[in-house]
Amino acid sequence: MRKIRAFCLICFSFFFLLNGCQQRVAERSEQTILSRFVPYFESIKKIGLQEENAYEFLKKITSVGGRLTGSEQADRAVEISLKIMEESGFDRVWSEPVEVRRWVRGEPEQAMVKSEKFPPQALKIAALGNSVPTPSSGLEAEVVEIQSEEELASAAEKIPGRIVFYNVPLDRTCTDPFSAYRRAARFRVNGASKAANYGAVAVLVRSTTFRIDAHPHTGLMEYQEGLPKIPAAAISTADAEKLHRWLQQDPALKIWIKLNCRDEGKVTSANVIGELTGREKPEEIILIGGHLDSWDLSPGAHDDAAGCAVAIEALRLIKEAGLKPGRTIRAVLFMDEEFGGTGGRAYAASVNRNREKHLVAIEQDRGGGAPVGLAFTLEKLIEKIRPLESYLRPLGINWIVKGGGGVDVSPLRESGAVLGSLMPEVQKYFDYHHSALDVPEVVHPRELELQAVILAIVVFYLAETGV
Amino acid sequence: MRKIRAFCLICFSFFFLLNGCQQRVAERSEQTILSRFVPYFESIKKIGLQEENAYEFLKKITSVGGRLTGSEQADRAVEISLKIMEESGFDRVWSEPVEVRRWVRGEPEQAMVKSEKFPPQALKIAALGNSVPTPSSGLEAEVVEIQSEEELASAAEKIPGRIVFYNVPLDRTCTDPFSAYRRAARFRVNGASKAANYGAVAVLVRSTTFRIDAHPHTGLMEYQEGLPKIPAAAISTADAEKLHRWLQQDPALKIWIKLNCRDEGKVTSANVIGELTGREKPEEIILIGGHLDSWDLSPGAHDDAAGCAVAIEALRLIKEAGLKPGRTIRAVLFMDEEFGGTGGRAYAASVNRNREKHLVAIEQDRGGGAPVGLAFTLEKLIEKIRPLESYLRPLGINWIVKGGGGVDVSPLRESGAVLGSLMPEVQKYFDYHHSALDVPEVVHPRELELQAVILAIVVFYLAETGV
Repeated sequence: MRKIRAFCLICFSFFFLLNGCQQRVAERSEQTILSRFVPYFESIKKIGLQEENAYEFLKKITSVGGRLTGSEQADRAVEISLKIMEESGFDRVWSEPVEVRRWVRGEPEQAMVKSEKFPPQALKIAALGNSVPTPSSGLEAEVVEIQSEEELASAAEKIPGRIVFYNVPLDRTCTDPFSAYRRAARFRVNGASKAANYGAVAVLVRSTTFRIDAHPHTGLMEYQEGLPKIPAAAISTADAEKLHRWLQQDPALKIWIKLNCRDEGKVTSANVIGELTGREKPEEIILIGGHLDSWDLSPGAHDDAAGCAVAIEALRLIKEAGLKPGRTIRAVLFMDEEFGGTGGRAYAASVNRNREKHLVAIEQDRGGGAPVGLAFTLEKLIEKIRPLESYLRPLGINWIVKGGGGVDVSPLRESGAVLGSLMPEVQKYFDYHHSALDVPEVVHPRELELQAVILAIVVFYLAETGV
Repeated sequence: MRKIRAFCLICFSFFFLLNGCQQRVAERSEQTILSRFVPYFESIKKIGLQEENAYEFLKKITSVGGRLTGSEQADRAVEISLKIMEESGFDRVWSEPVEVRRWVRGEPEQAMVKSEKFPPQALKIAALGNSVPTPSSGLEAEVVEIQSEEELASAAEKIPGRIVFYNVPLDRTCTDPFSAYRRAARFRVNGASKAANYGAVAVLVRSTTFRIDAHPHTGLMEYQEGLPKIPAAAISTADAEKLHRWLQQDPALKIWIKLNCRDEGKVTSANVIGELTGREKPEEIILIGGHLDSWDLSPGAHDDAAGCAVAIEALRLIKEAGLKPGRTIRAVLFMDEEFGGTGGRAYAASVNRNREKHLVAIEQDRGGGAPVGLAFTLEKLIEKIRPLESYLRPLGINWIVKGGGGVDVSPLRESGAVLGSLMPEVQKYFDYHHSALDVPEVVHPRELELQAVILAIVVFYLAETGV
């Protein structure tokens, strides 16, 4: 019995020892990795936080104004971005053509509420991207207010010949603003055809923001094949609330609207690309991207000059810190995220043509807020980055989870790239999104720079160690 | 040997089983706690995010303007807060007297750079709290610029009869804004006496903000016993940068400054207190506090109308959700955090007099930003809150760590209270801090409300389960 006890004791001890050893080995390897990289990370951090250059890039990109896909401003943004990258001394800087649609808003929209019970009232509206115009004399009709998808079907008989007014607010009780947005944005994207199916002549869609403000928030809408194309516009949340009250006073009120937008077919635009070519394995590429186009109502500072600025700044920080990465790091500013994603597809096609190998593709398209987490589509990559966690935490990174990616980089997944994103704080993001409010002043230089610093650290680490 | 193996196998199995069981028991107890509380938490969350009333309270408190300790505005804020709490229907609402100092800024300060090499230049300055005034005709002297503590000693012979200009920027490369602030704020708090010790006649102190702006950021300064009291003022960062350049052009330039502040002795002010009285153990108290006073240059929205507003709103949410907590939950709006902390000490003295038992005292004084974490001074309390983590994460709580507390609640620690804080995102906090920029518009209703929702959830849970 004594033998048995002794043997068991040995077994137990061995088990605990093994357990403890494994943990210590993991800790030691984490410390080894950190002690090797921390001096580089410190240089990157110090240069970044001291100089806050991401914001300077953002100001340059936004200086051209709204960069609607296919517009002159978008062309100018391509030129400016190429210049920024060249002046930053990247190893290679170039652009690649993208065939995009050119939709033009034209003269500002007009809308007027006409009632026999109160004086005429102007409404603040903006055509949704891709909408057809109204006749040049405008369009006048009675209104059916709809507050849910179910209501549309039950209001079917009232709809023919009328304007459907989708008055569905973002659900404020939803803690994730993006979830609330996605649910409400369905009315913007598909609402026109759904209403046209019941005979509506136009739609007004409540702006997709949590706040009550005087600004229409635009965005892309799509027509369903085989149904009449009717004009579609966003209405400001403040005016949506008013219209709701006016309709209670006078359900027979009419709205006259005039949209002057037009489709001008296809034009050639460009993705802008800069890289620090890899020292040892230049053929293995790590990508950071944002989208260079924006909506036309503002200079699109959060959406997505921020993503472009941090991508460029991350490369600049690595270069300024005197580092030459083992693998290639690329900043890609995609054209046309907002109007169909042609830039992302064109880039992926070019990657396939040139048989390039993208290890990781990180997309930044959630605004320039303070960083809170990282997300990657591959568990193994998350584990690989885990040793950096203690270094990244004071910079704002509270978690590294499964997720990430975006419209522009998702076509790269087919060719084996892991997708990723740095996730910023987004409670305020939809206040500005797609409206006239998305100006450089609402992005904070230090918060934006923290994004660039973290990205520079993560991609430099991946470029040194591979995936 | 077979016996031994079998026995070992049993031991091992038992060990793993035990391990697994413990984990499952922990998980089950967490699930039990959550399933009991989540319906309450959901009510609190829905009411909060839908109504965003914390911001309404903040607007009411800030409506009186800057609430400098001892001022008429501070008195008015006491009245308004009592009214808000009474209207919210709390079980008890009262105020307690606090003897405070009344320091008055007087007419706006003036400062002028006089040089023989360039025309006169005005500087934007503001007297530091507690400073003595200049003579009524002002004070004119040459300037010694100091960029570190060491420099002061080495410049000793130049200082007599001159104005010391502390031009020490916040270290932008420091990721924690509060650390950077604390280091730079030493010059504001102690700089006057240190300079007076070398014979200086006044000090100008670079404002403690990361940004370059045109606004002096004031704050408390202290005189060291036995040294001459010399006038002390904050200078805006933009003017500090200019003055630095002017001093390079003309080291013999003079500055004329005029401060009109005065000490008006002691007056009686008040802490404002409201509570939801405990259902089962009314004598056990859980406190949430902010400070009602602010600096006088702005309505102090982040510092600290935000803390007061979320404390009141947390109680209101619990009440509106129809909940009656087991233990007493108190919102305390402390007077005079900024000018010496007399309110916190007066409250603690009252607690001791009345032999009240405070289990936990949570202070909110880091602005109204989006929540990121919770901190408590007691490890056991952290473990107690751990089961709520999965619920709190979508609301923004990424970590629960050791820390927390603040000037107002720290005197309660002696009588056994655990201190705590909800930590918000603070990268922008010092942009506004103690300057004219700290207005309601820079606080976001949804971010602020998330603080109130989290606090309501945490204190209701503690009030039900004890500490």
